[in-house]
Amino acid sequence: MHKVPVGVLGASGYAGRELCGLIAQHPALELAFAAANDQRGRRARIGASEVTYVATEDAPLNKAEVVFTALPHGASAKWVGNARENGARVVDLSSDFRPGAVANAISKSQAPYGLTELMRAKIPGAEIVANPGCYPTAVLLAIAPLLKAGCVVPGATINISAASGVTGAGYSARPDLLFAEVAEDFKAYAVGNEHRHIAEMQAVTRELGGKDNDILFTPHLLPVARGILATITVPVNEYTSDPSALWRDCYRGEPFVEIADEPPSLRDVVRRNVVRVSIAKAANVRQPTLIIISAIDNLVKGAAGQALQNANLLLGLSEQAGLPA
Amino acid sequence: MHKVPVGVLGASGYAGRELCGLIAQHPALELAFAAANDQRGRRARIGASEVTYVATEDAPLNKAEVVFTALPHGASAKWVGNARENGARVVDLSSDFRPGAVANAISKSQAPYGLTELMRAKIPGAEIVANPGCYPTAVLLAIAPLLKAGCVVPGATINISAASGVTGAGYSARPDLLFAEVAEDFKAYAVGNEHRHIAEMQAVTRELGGKDNDILFTPHLLPVARGILATITVPVNEYTSDPSALWRDCYRGEPFVEIADEPPSLRDVVRRNVVRVSIAKAANVRQPTLIIISAIDNLVKGAAGQALQNANLLLGLSEQAGLPA
Amino acid sequence: MHKVPVGVLGASGYAGRELCGLIAQHPALELAFAAANDQRGRRARIGASEVTYVATEDAPLNKAEVVFTALPHGASAKWVGNARENGARVVDLSSDFRPGAVANAISKSQAPYGLTELMRAKIPGAEIVANPGCYPTAVLLAIAPLLKAGCVVPGATINISAASGVTGAGYSARPDLLFAEVAEDFKAYAVGNEHRHIAEMQAVTRELGGKDNDILFTPHLLPVARGILATITVPVNEYTSDPSALWRDCYRGEPFVEIADEPPSLRDVVRRNVVRVSIAKAANVRQPTLIIISAIDNLVKGAAGQALQNANLLLGLSEQAGLPA
Amino acid sequence: MHKVPVGVLGASGYAGRELCGLIAQHPALELAFAAANDQRGRRARIGASEVTYVATEDAPLNKAEVVFTALPHGASAKWVGNARENGARVVDLSSDFRPGAVANAISKSQAPYGLTELMRAKIPGAEIVANPGCYPTAVLLAIAPLLKAGCVVPGATINISAASGVTGAGYSARPDLLFAEVAEDFKAYAVGNEHRHIAEMQAVTRELGGKDNDILFTPHLLPVARGILATITVPVNEYTSDPSALWRDCYRGEPFVEIADEPPSLRDVVRRNVVRVSIAKAANVRQPTLIIISAIDNLVKGAAGQALQNANLLLGLSEQAGLPA
Repeated sequence: MHKVPVGVLGASGYAGRELCGLIAQHPALELAFAAANDQRGRRARIGASEVTYVATEDAPLNKAEVVFTALPHGASAKWVGNARENGARVVDLSSDFRPGAVANAISKSQAPYGLTELMRAKIPGAEIVANPGCYPTAVLLAIAPLLKAGCVVPGATINISAASGVTGAGYSARPDLLFAEVAEDFKAYAVGNEHRHIAEMQAVTRELGGKDNDILFTPHLLPVARGILATITVPVNEYTSDPSALWRDCYRGEPFVEIADEPPSLRDVVRRNVVRVSIAKAANVRQPTLIIISAIDNLVKGAAGQALQNANLLLGLSEQAGLPA
Repeated sequence: MHKVPVGVLGASGYAGRELCGLIAQHPALELAFAAANDQRGRRARIGASEVTYVATEDAPLNKAEVVFTALPHGASAKWVGNARENGARVVDLSSDFRPGAVANAISKSQAPYGLTELMRAKIPGAEIVANPGCYPTAVLLAIAPLLKAGCVVPGATINISAASGVTGAGYSARPDLLFAEVAEDFKAYAVGNEHRHIAEMQAVTRELGGKDNDILFTPHLLPVARGILATITVPVNEYTSDPSALWRDCYRGEPFVEIADEPPSLRDVVRRNVVRVSIAKAANVRQPTLIIISAIDNLVKGAAGQALQNANLLLGLSEQAGLPA
Repeated sequence: MHKVPVGVLGASGYAGRELCGLIAQHPALELAFAAANDQRGRRARIGASEVTYVATEDAPLNKAEVVFTALPHGASAKWVGNARENGARVVDLSSDFRPGAVANAISKSQAPYGLTELMRAKIPGAEIVANPGCYPTAVLLAIAPLLKAGCVVPGATINISAASGVTGAGYSARPDLLFAEVAEDFKAYAVGNEHRHIAEMQAVTRELGGKDNDILFTPHLLPVARGILATITVPVNEYTSDPSALWRDCYRGEPFVEIADEPPSLRDVVRRNVVRVSIAKAANVRQPTLIIISAIDNLVKGAAGQALQNANLLLGLSEQAGLPA
Repeated sequence: MHKVPVGVLGASGYAGRELCGLIAQHPALELAFAAANDQRGRRARIGASEVTYVATEDAPLNKAEVVFTALPHGASAKWVGNARENGARVVDLSSDFRPGAVANAISKSQAPYGLTELMRAKIPGAEIVANPGCYPTAVLLAIAPLLKAGCVVPGATINISAASGVTGAGYSARPDLLFAEVAEDFKAYAVGNEHRHIAEMQAVTRELGGKDNDILFTPHLLPVARGILATITVPVNEYTSDPSALWRDCYRGEPFVEIADEPPSLRDVVRRNVVRVSIAKAANVRQPTLIIISAIDNLVKGAAGQALQNANLLLGLSEQAGLPA
């Protein structure tokens, strides 16, 4: 069978390697190139397959129908442009084209936000898809049903305490990410609502109906390789008898969204392209509040898997093709 | 030098072993007995010392001036009574005598709450000290300055997302605590504000001034052996220029409380009898909110270390004796 | 397409769950039953699929063409008999029918040893396949080429230091397997050449040509969930220029054996049905000695994956069907 | 009480930090300086104390009676010379002056090897002490009794499979030491008897009596922060009824050597200045062979703790002063 050639820029990072591995197992795609300056000329085994890295400059962009850009934030926009000039469509895994990005000069119609389950309609015709960040994916898919239904207390703050495995920080040789520093530790970072993903979450929250709801977000670094768990508390106008019904309705038929009775754990979602969500009513408080727990694999549903969902839509393939549910 | 004999009931659990290790290094205490039914007759090395376990029934309670009861919740009250009948004073590490405990028939004057830094006055003369829970220690020491100063928005919910190492669940052979189940995982539990420590936190919050503030608490299980990190968000009436000044004032001269400029990590506090707290103002939200991060070692400041602080006070010793700051 | 029904006894242990997960993804097999007494009536998610456990007594053995017995050593033989009486062929993952098993009253022709790459011929016609132990799989596939070529110094001891992840100890709630006990630790066990797998390794070593070579084996417990690494030193008669040539010849065309230039790590093999082996000449010693490093996933090539290889052969399917290489 | 000023060069690495922490708790020493070029001007908390780093060039070498050099191998010799010119005596933690070091132009009488328990006599009068490597400490203390007693089979190879926590690789930001690379992994390195510690082990083995015994050493990288476990097999002339008697005799009265009945684990030795050794006879082999398991904390007995033992001897203090046994 003829396979569609696709390429990956930034292919030696954690998200890039995950992409190469998924592409190798995809029934309708083949890897035209894997570019990574620091690994140029080297071979690497990724799962059961092998890649040979080329320099980014040497990537044959015109050979790929879709280019995935998994480059550092800020460095991506230029290469998205290069890929477009070579006729490729692009799924960009950086934050350069996402809602809330300050320097983004491209219109949303050109680069729609690829939170696929919620914004599927605009993807097939797009030139560029702005693939969501890992934390925003976990959070926005979890709170969207409440926002769309108008159940959040007006003016209330949506409070998120989230924790990510270390691959979320990228494949960079920072001393604070060494095994002997991370093991047996746990800490918060970007404390004070300062994380760079907040603008993205805030902007999409407004789009989804939370016009006057602020996001308060505190991320933490977990001593695990992969996975994000977000614990979200949302003041609501009133309790319903079965609060998760709203989510089941909103995501009926979605293969990559799981509404769970028990709080999800990282173990439930790693190496799978799903978000798994549980909803509970807070007891012992006067202000009715829902506690939503959301879990994803930051490298799959939070990066490479969702990117492939979007690429499948760009190419007219089944959205589920090549994706481990 | 003459040393004061003390005994430990429940000495084979994680808190009990920590206590035995601290007592072995204490300059003024000696271990009269270490009781643990499941280990009776066995020797165990704890740090650089060794203990020989006796059955709980065989513990020579009358030989100890202070008995530490590190027994399961519910099983402790009876043994506290036995120790009292034998003339010993008791530091009880269970929840049986703590604020909020339902079946507690003993008055608070008989069994004061041993959150030492905040309630030091009542300890020296007590017969029984109700040693605080690990989560309440991390949370209450962190929010007390705000509550006492009346800075919390009336009626506001105090939101706590906390994570604990697995020793917090005790030394019990549960399949869900096996290495292969916990490693690389992270999950919430007691979701819905249902944790049994909530009554304790809520009761003390009221005592400290938070008359109409509810506690919303979601604990998580971390893949680490020891340590608790609590991320606490508190709506406040207004921001001050240096929010941590309130904490520095409140805890001036306290050897076991550290107010940090950077968010504390577990690594900062493990094997030390301290609580380490940072305070930050939330940006990008309309409701002024402080984000307080609090870290303790659940087995030291959250259990055995604080118990020793209280025992030191009971015995008229320096509160810091034998404690690693 | 019609799928062949197979069943699993002992389906809630680590090897049993791995089998159920592999069967769910197998193109030609379907799960007729998953039996586990301690989980009877419960549902469990395994990867992307779900199983409902039945009691072992209630397993419809006659509905399965192949039954996998993943029961404790000693308990398996009886159920292998029951399955046979119901007309099923059996792949037995216990040690009950393996070479060296003391109480094994069944002839080797009835229950051939399923070290597939080396003993493939006898599997298709077998009633029972004795699936190899995890350590023997890692060790025997690694040393077989040397033994068959007669290169080992006569009378020399083959020295093996091996380390296994904790799933090798099974899904049993032992206090010494708790996260807080295993994390940050490492230790040897069965020291003194006392491990119960030694008889199996010794017996097969003799069959493969090591008539007068003894096995000296020291296993260790690793703080990882899965994976075995065996470091094997073998005195040889002389060095050849490329020592790995012997292995490449021996395993030419084998999809599940990888001869590597660099020492393999667990990361290279987890979740894959492969053994990965490297060979190096010892420098700085007078006695020529090869250092062979062998890595497998103890639950895949060391248990469920190899069992499926054997089942594929029993059923006349492609040996690779359903197996992640 | 007057304390003796000592200084640390290379104070920001793992061994250097451990040294600073031990010095802070030492009853008779005080830290004159902590030098680390990459941290110059920064403050760091180490345990309960704090240090302010100076540049190596700015270290006031003449203010210290003993200088500890914890610099990279090769870079140390020059600074040892500088310290000597400033009148300080030196404990050198690098390999520059150890037995087997190729470029070592200094005589052994000037720089004796500081394997304290075995070579205590030469330390007090030394100008420079060559502090042993971590692996050699674990191995040589374990095999010395056998070598000295002449029990090893002449010409036999002493086979060592050892595993170290990642702090053994130093505090260097290498991608292969990142948490996400090391966790859940295990691998051998320097395979082929090529580790740079082999010359040191081989030279001292000869000194201790193993004139014609070769060392075959394969190290591994463990997913733990600290600790070394060495599994050593030694062919012996014959078995005695109690093989560990030889070790108990050899190390009688030594506070930092523990002869154990059960195989030691890392957990037994971390944060303690001890080597813990067990001895077992190999069953099921024709060649009598002892299996010796040896465990140390690579940063304490394998580096900073042993360095302090040696400094105590240099300064005429109790050898045990300031050391956690």
